[in-house]
Amino acid sequence: MASSIPDEVMMDAALIKELVEVAKDAALLQGVLMRTEESPNSSELVTYAPFTLFPSPVPKSVFLQALAVQTHFNTLVDKISQDMDFLQEALASTIEVDDFTARLFKIHQQILQEGRSQSIVLGLNRSDYMLDQREDQNSSLKQIEINTISASFGGLSSQTPHVHRHILKVAGRLEESQRILDNNPAAGLARGLAKAWELYGSERAVVMFLVEVDQRNIFDQRYIESELWKRNIPTVRKRFDDVYKTGSLDPDKRLLVDGKEVAVVYFRNGYMPQNYTNEQCWDVRLMMERSQAVKCPDISTHLAGTKKVQQVLARPGVLERFFPDQPQVVQQIKETFAGLYTLDMGPEGDKTVAMALAEPNRFVLKPQREGGGNNIYGSEIVQVLKEVRGSPERTAYILMDKINPAPIQNYLLRRDAPLAISNCLSELGVFGAYIRYNDVCSLQCMAIFTQ
Amino acid sequence: MASSIPDEVMMDAALIKELVEVAKDAALLQGVLMRTEESPNSSELVTYAPFTLFPSPVPKSVFLQALAVQTHFNTLVDKISQDMDFLQEALASTIEVDDFTARLFKIHQQILQEGRSQSIVLGLNRSDYMLDQREDQNSSLKQIEINTISASFGGLSSQTPHVHRHILKVAGRLEESQRILDNNPAAGLARGLAKAWELYGSERAVVMFLVEVDQRNIFDQRYIESELWKRNIPTVRKRFDDVYKTGSLDPDKRLLVDGKEVAVVYFRNGYMPQNYTNEQCWDVRLMMERSQAVKCPDISTHLAGTKKVQQVLARPGVLERFFPDQPQVVQQIKETFAGLYTLDMGPEGDKTVAMALAEPNRFVLKPQREGGGNNIYGSEIVQVLKEVRGSPERTAYILMDKINPAPIQNYLLRRDAPLAISNCLSELGVFGAYIRYNDVCSLQCMAIFTQ
Repeated sequence: MASSIPDEVMMDAALIKELVEVAKDAALLQGVLMRTEESPNSSELVTYAPFTLFPSPVPKSVFLQALAVQTHFNTLVDKISQDMDFLQEALASTIEVDDFTARLFKIHQQILQEGRSQSIVLGLNRSDYMLDQREDQNSSLKQIEINTISASFGGLSSQTPHVHRHILKVAGRLEESQRILDNNPAAGLARGLAKAWELYGSERAVVMFLVEVDQRNIFDQRYIESELWKRNIPTVRKRFDDVYKTGSLDPDKRLLVDGKEVAVVYFRNGYMPQNYTNEQCWDVRLMMERSQAVKCPDISTHLAGTKKVQQVLARPGVLERFFPDQPQVVQQIKETFAGLYTLDMGPEGDKTVAMALAEPNRFVLKPQREGGGNNIYGSEIVQVLKEVRGSPERTAYILMDKINPAPIQNYLLRRDAPLAISNCLSELGVFGAYIRYNDVCSLQCMAIFTQ
Repeated sequence: MASSIPDEVMMDAALIKELVEVAKDAALLQGVLMRTEESPNSSELVTYAPFTLFPSPVPKSVFLQALAVQTHFNTLVDKISQDMDFLQEALASTIEVDDFTARLFKIHQQILQEGRSQSIVLGLNRSDYMLDQREDQNSSLKQIEINTISASFGGLSSQTPHVHRHILKVAGRLEESQRILDNNPAAGLARGLAKAWELYGSERAVVMFLVEVDQRNIFDQRYIESELWKRNIPTVRKRFDDVYKTGSLDPDKRLLVDGKEVAVVYFRNGYMPQNYTNEQCWDVRLMMERSQAVKCPDISTHLAGTKKVQQVLARPGVLERFFPDQPQVVQQIKETFAGLYTLDMGPEGDKTVAMALAEPNRFVLKPQREGGGNNIYGSEIVQVLKEVRGSPERTAYILMDKINPAPIQNYLLRRDAPLAISNCLSELGVFGAYIRYNDVCSLQCMAIFTQ
């Protein structure tokens, strides 16, 4: 990756102003686009998706480590999704306090009872990392979370290398420009979807993108649609409400929506409670799960990506259950784990509470629910834990070691935002794609950078 | 080219609605962009450039004819630009009534007197056609005009084939989709500019895009900049005012702007009177023409593209002057000419007036000035000619046979415009690029579709 940009460039106000203009136009031309907050369902006026003027450097060794471990994460997620006892045990306490997980789990159980009508599973996940910077040490790769549903930005991040290469050239940094790697998660994600569609085996069936009510990030998804159309695979975009109104299962449990058979349901919605605006959304989720369509992901794989599962995996001996004869795999995965601690009722959870209250600045308190952005830090941890320490409410949280990435100076470009140097903390996201069929798991992986 | 779209598609309101959404997003993702009318110098919010939902069909024979004749037009323009007597004679009457042409001509004369300081000339022109549809005949290619300065849409039209292919696929017209040709004028125009830069022979010198005050169509130009940067050729964008403030000639007549030597001046401004907002613009034009920088185009090539020259070329015997031993070339060019008639004072012009008044619907009356959009038709021709018939004012116009293209039904997509079928009249534009140096003329040509 490109090294940090020297001060002579960062501090040259005239050059930066010119580069920012070039950068915005390059991002727009390369399709790094978003709809506006005020009109999330209109493409009449659009803007560039927020991005940094310069690329964020990642040490090569850490980058290769993240790629190498991705295949093991794919396998792990897939194994968890098939281990009913493990999921039940791991999520038992969460289900009691978190209605969202409870409803997902109920669907998961119903499907198990009925028997699955589709044995093919497509997984498209993204494992997110930060580079932990400890004194006197090299940076080390620490997983923040793994997203097993609706992992986004595979489309837009396919384009950012072109933008950054161009900017560095115009900045006179030709050598750095040439060190930026290619990146094409959109093609990789589409390859997974195409394979699932092909295995489903009906030429006229479609890949259905289950999309949100407000579609600001539609362009990220359009890249994947476009890759599928290049292979002559038809795609449709439907909301929960569309599927409720025009969807049904035929006697063979084929999913029909608006008159078309659905080969693959690709979830770009349904990952957080707010997505289920009414009971009909839940009816639709159940219908899709019961159907013959390949789900990306199926309900069990969705559950395998919850924060509670992530925390349980960090316990001693748990990873070994999934890789009994592969100590090296266990080791590779463990190296990416930050400390994760339960807040379940009982002595282990009590210990976590005490530890957090003693040194709150060492930790981050995370709600188990998906959706992000609600993490709790510092004195607020003390406040929250003092409130919930004695009640099962505390089970709704997970405690995690705080990761300390070294901030990197950069310019954040975002519509109408004033131009200023920021101290940026970046995440590195690695996509993984896999398909399970006939009990054989075919694995692929590919990389992106998120910021 | 794709054939017309069948009614079953054109009239399927639900399908069209879906296709339009897909089309707008595809155009945006492919970079078919424009800034907004309200903020022509901001890239915070942008829209798609106006385009048609479906491609416009062009018969293969006509298309190949337009490509074949382009090389001859390049040669013709270049020969005219070097024929001082011809230019003087052809433009004499225009100069008397049109101040803009007069000022250009004055610069042209001053350069001739001083002697040119740069022998390399780069021409990037675009010849525009319509397909004339006469009873019981095949469509025939008729030139509307040739633009020898600021010919635009080479960038955006490089992207429209991708958009139309995608739309036709989604519309279920796979076969038509596969018949859309590739198109990359941006690369061809950049090749010309790169060659000129290389011949100029200074690695640190830049290609300067002379741009308008309001830059709505910046993205069209960004494509060409991007192609140049790919070759590590630096580009800058400057307005007349920037060059006035920071530009100068050194003792060797090297053009320096904002501290950088300019290898090539690429005019994307300066083609119509309104572009010269004050006397300083004219000073700048003169300075650039006097400089060692390669001009695209130089002042003489600019003049070679005026409507008056086009009309004079249509007179019997004139083309032969430029191609004395090439009757086939003369024939090929002539086939693309519609009838063009002088309105100069004298018996020939009087004949034109009488002809136009007798059958006004057969003609179009064109002001000689550049800029487009001011053509006069039908009863208005009668009105205007009755006013000016006896005075030299009539010399400001050219009369041309009206071309009757067959309208094609299509949907015009334009920001916030209501969706409706339109009868579209399309133009076919063919780009030509050439460089003259050491008295050798190196010719290239390439094609686009404009609409």
